[in-house]
Amino acid sequence: MTSQQLESQIRQKKSFLCIGLDVDLDKIPKHLLQSEDPIFEFNKAIIDATHHFCVAYKPNTAFYEAYGIKGWQSLKKTIDYLNEFYPEIFTIADAKRGDIGNTSSMYAKAFFEDLGFDSVTVVPYMGKDSVEPFLAFPDKHTILLALTSNEGAFDFQTKKINEIELYKQVLETSKTWKNSENLMYVVGATKAEYFTEIRKIVPDSFLLVPGVGAQGGNLQDVCKHGLNSQIGLLINSSRGIIYASSAMDFAEKAYEKAKELQSEMEKIVG
Amino acid sequence: MTSQQLESQIRQKKSFLCIGLDVDLDKIPKHLLQSEDPIFEFNKAIIDATHHFCVAYKPNTAFYEAYGIKGWQSLKKTIDYLNEFYPEIFTIADAKRGDIGNTSSMYAKAFFEDLGFDSVTVVPYMGKDSVEPFLAFPDKHTILLALTSNEGAFDFQTKKINEIELYKQVLETSKTWKNSENLMYVVGATKAEYFTEIRKIVPDSFLLVPGVGAQGGNLQDVCKHGLNSQIGLLINSSRGIIYASSAMDFAEKAYEKAKELQSEMEKIVG
Repeated sequence: MTSQQLESQIRQKKSFLCIGLDVDLDKIPKHLLQSEDPIFEFNKAIIDATHHFCVAYKPNTAFYEAYGIKGWQSLKKTIDYLNEFYPEIFTIADAKRGDIGNTSSMYAKAFFEDLGFDSVTVVPYMGKDSVEPFLAFPDKHTILLALTSNEGAFDFQTKKINEIELYKQVLETSKTWKNSENLMYVVGATKAEYFTEIRKIVPDSFLLVPGVGAQGGNLQDVCKHGLNSQIGLLINSSRGIIYASSAMDFAEKAYEKAKELQSEMEKIVG
Repeated sequence: MTSQQLESQIRQKKSFLCIGLDVDLDKIPKHLLQSEDPIFEFNKAIIDATHHFCVAYKPNTAFYEAYGIKGWQSLKKTIDYLNEFYPEIFTIADAKRGDIGNTSSMYAKAFFEDLGFDSVTVVPYMGKDSVEPFLAFPDKHTILLALTSNEGAFDFQTKKINEIELYKQVLETSKTWKNSENLMYVVGATKAEYFTEIRKIVPDSFLLVPGVGAQGGNLQDVCKHGLNSQIGLLINSSRGIIYASSAMDFAEKAYEKAKELQSEMEKIVG
């Protein structure tokens, strides 16, 4: 999918919501545990209930790997379901991968070809040759971690190298890499004031923003500083939507929560 | 496995060799492709041929994920085989994971519990709360990326924050984290001169050293600057051993290459 197609979907749905599919068997409704593939059944119900209100889904691979081969199968079924029934939806493998060149190529193959995601999150720590293999795939997107939404972000990301914070160095440097037009960035919502500075460095890029809701970020603040003329934001919510209820009505409650967020976004996009 | 058990295995085998199981179906002997699980068959043959000469095996997860569910099954069979037949061997999931706290817990569960590895490589970019969930597992080890062996290491890792390179900040800071005694570090062999400085910061930790052989690092140089009184080094070789031959004699040639490296190490340990 191109970023133009993503933008056009945003304008059509009046939403830039991304829903995180972080499925924890301890948190999903108990009645699903009797099905053959509870993780997939949960995802399918959430997707069917919320797809009108969001433009992207983002399974975090950790939640699938924790259940071994069965978990990997659930992930595959989920992405296949999305690609078959909702091909207009942008899909993100939140995998935070990255390795030396030939190894990153294998990861790119895993997420873009074998699984068939539109994008994957990648860690910048190992530099250029760990990221460029992902960028080589046309119409696929590499979402580079810049500033994350957790407390540990202050351990290294905000430390200054020659007066410039590491996460800004990451943004600046990544723009020089081959096929950098395929880059998007993760920027945590808990630091809305940083968006102004970030937009000076990457005015045109899409930013994937976790941390709205459960982690305390504020949608209005993020939009005030982060929107660009192509919208340029994907706001992620995971727990706030998918675990809105752990009873039989979980899909209905997820529908309501997603609709609520989309309504807020409609005011901004419209 | 405790690091004392690892040290005692090193002294017994007179080897601190780690063999990287980075299996690429395009590179393994063609006759294996007819078997039901070529990746596992390849690993099994390599392990059976080389286990006398090494103390650790390190599958890189990228090479398994690239083959989807079948690849994940091959990884599971490989670690199960190691744990059943060679329980004295230290196992490393070279996965380079890391995420916000509750998500890192899922990764730790995946590698330590579901798969049953002794250790996993982890990226420091997201800081303390992304690493501590791994450190919480007793007798399991978290191998934190400090200085990697690729060219991109110079993009950020060697940049200075208040006069101190980022990778040294990572070493220093990580020592303050809870259960930091469960940390080991990745330090690339292509920069042997850096080991002296690194040993000042982490004198007692095990260092996993990629980049000897195929990537140009020199064993003698690394040992000169990196050894400590517990040996404290795991030298990894992947392609140089496992792809020593792509013919029917691949296991024999791997045996010879591993033996050769072990002989060099015997001079140093003995």
